Amino acid sequence: MPGMDEAEIQTPCLLVDLDALDRNIARMQALADEMGVRLRIHGKMHKSADIARLQISAGACGICCQKVSEAEAFVRAGIPDVLVSNQIRDPAKIDRLARLPGRGARVGVCVDDLANVAELSEAAMRHGTWLDVMVEIDCGAGRCGVAPGRPAVELAKAVREAPNLNFAGLQAYHGGAQHVRDYRDRKSRIDAAVLKVRETLDLLEAAGIDCPHVTGAGTGTFALEGRSGVYTELQCGSYAFMDADYQRIRDETGAPIRDFENALFILTSVMSHVKPDEAVCDAGLKAQSVDSGLPVVFGRNDVEYVAGADEHGQIRDPGGALKINDKLRLVPGHCDPTCNVHDWYVGVRGGKVEAVWPITARGKAY
Amino acid sequence: MPGMDEAEIQTPCLLVDLDALDRNIARMQALADEMGVRLRIHGKMHKSADIARLQISAGACGICCQKVSEAEAFVRAGIPDVLVSNQIRDPAKIDRLARLPGRGARVGVCVDDLANVAELSEAAMRHGTWLDVMVEIDCGAGRCGVAPGRPAVELAKAVREAPNLNFAGLQAYHGGAQHVRDYRDRKSRIDAAVLKVRETLDLLEAAGIDCPHVTGAGTGTFALEGRSGVYTELQCGSYAFMDADYQRIRDETGAPIRDFENALFILTSVMSHVKPDEAVCDAGLKAQSVDSGLPVVFGRNDVEYVAGADEHGQIRDPGGALKINDKLRLVPGHCDPTCNVHDWYVGVRGGKVEAVWPITARGKAY
Repeated sequence: MPGMDEAEIQTPCLLVDLDALDRNIARMQALADEMGVRLRIHGKMHKSADIARLQISAGACGICCQKVSEAEAFVRAGIPDVLVSNQIRDPAKIDRLARLPGRGARVGVCVDDLANVAELSEAAMRHGTWLDVMVEIDCGAGRCGVAPGRPAVELAKAVREAPNLNFAGLQAYHGGAQHVRDYRDRKSRIDAAVLKVRETLDLLEAAGIDCPHVTGAGTGTFALEGRSGVYTELQCGSYAFMDADYQRIRDETGAPIRDFENALFILTSVMSHVKPDEAVCDAGLKAQSVDSGLPVVFGRNDVEYVAGADEHGQIRDPGGALKINDKLRLVPGHCDPTCNVHDWYVGVRGGKVEAVWPITARGKAY
Repeated sequence: MPGMDEAEIQTPCLLVDLDALDRNIARMQALADEMGVRLRIHGKMHKSADIARLQISAGACGICCQKVSEAEAFVRAGIPDVLVSNQIRDPAKIDRLARLPGRGARVGVCVDDLANVAELSEAAMRHGTWLDVMVEIDCGAGRCGVAPGRPAVELAKAVREAPNLNFAGLQAYHGGAQHVRDYRDRKSRIDAAVLKVRETLDLLEAAGIDCPHVTGAGTGTFALEGRSGVYTELQCGSYAFMDADYQRIRDETGAPIRDFENALFILTSVMSHVKPDEAVCDAGLKAQSVDSGLPVVFGRNDVEYVAGADEHGQIRDPGGALKINDKLRLVPGHCDPTCNVHDWYVGVRGGKVEAVWPITARGKAY
């Protein structure tokens, strides 16, 4: 509860260092401003309306998320501009999406299939609303998105002609590049993505179609898209919290990227220590996602998280440094799916709990 | 909602085949009865009071779970006998645990440290309650638990002497053996665990200490513990749902274990299919845990789930069999942490939704 000492917090839980969060938010906004691009923060990472509001107050133009249920949660919480940076195909979900602008928010969505344009348009007409529609191109990730160039232009034309849809631009997110360790490898992927975007923009221009925005980028590559001259909007999410995997990627000089600090931790306690060189803590697979590796113990080199079971973490403690009820801060391997297993963020500053924020869109996967 | 056609369900969600669930529950209870041991089902797997009630109606003596917050949720839901098969060390959690028997349930907990015995006893005295206490021995998993033999007897003595604690027996769960693929390898680990239990039982008997129960075992090894002559209670959980990893383990003949069926699925829909040989579905890392591998598409050999991102699954579809909005049933790699990311089970029978059950203890990790 707010006002509590940090030492009284019951574990495991997600701890947010509010000073670090504030600095990360300010830093990314300053970088976007410097590069002359908008920042549309990715709400799928933290799923928190409270944190989204901090980011919008700092200058973000709005948020993106991936699911209609997330968009519903954010719009209900008063977020005024929400892009679903994903395809929505189920008729019931399209209907839910098309209702949302009626609740006072600007709402967008991506398409990569002609049939979807008509489906969205019909639903928006039915509800008397307008949807922003971004044409998603596959700029290298090999997942969703039409091929750049002519197929994207065809889709853009269809969007422009469809009632109750605004053609809002291109979605060109290269998910496959974000976590690539080596800077030159990351750069060559984004250089290729930029060429694909440019080719598509040229064809759009030749067809007399104005492209209001090109949106994409993430924490791993945003400086490349931001300075590309073609992207106008960044969709970074992880920078606000950071995680162990993002700290494994390297900048031009081979050093870890230093723009952002760890603001998110899994707070865990030692709950068994029968063997002298191994402790057991209370954060296992149900307190995090290990898809990108095990968590890293923050600020300590003497102990190591070496294995996770459902409710337990095994901590190698060769020097026997840990005692029962000692607390550790774990940096999760991957922040997004780790946030999605918790119900609350416990925000701390100066050793005190300052805020307890619900994870607004937790579990909203549908 | 109950009454809906299965085709109307919005995805991704957890689907439970109620016929398969009923058969799994009946089968495990019949096996336990045949072996003459009690079945204390593991509630940490499904975290559902509704399913726990089905299992208790079928004959289970009660449930176990791993966290005080889970026990609180189950006791609130009316489950009458709950063992926390884990150590509880935080003073606030011990206090919460000791309050629980006052709500009408029989409540137990495990210990592996002498100091913990006094802590539990003081809390139970404070609340005027009694706690069942199992002495946990490390029978091979190398995680929590005191060494078998003399250290366990010392702890049992302390429990017997401590006010407001009942010595309820030994916890001897070999977590490391459950998912071992080869039958002989699994068997040799459980044979070794049985020797450790027997050694401890002999010493307890020599010390004049009656050991009411020896509890342990899981879905991978229960037939070994059940027929050991020393275990009196099984703690199986996954059998009710099964998962892809448990289907990789082999029986004496080298065949997959056939006692239990897949009753749990992640229902997912195709939401993008731009490339002819690859579909994208709406279940990624936030709809499951991939700690034990990717999910397996149920009942189909023509398509394969080959990669998961936060909100997307990539499905190899070499024959182009899938269309937009086609639904697939995915068998999760690991059921427990997959259940923990969802809020509801959608129970279906004969193509209709029959029950929608909240996941009572979802996120209850503290």
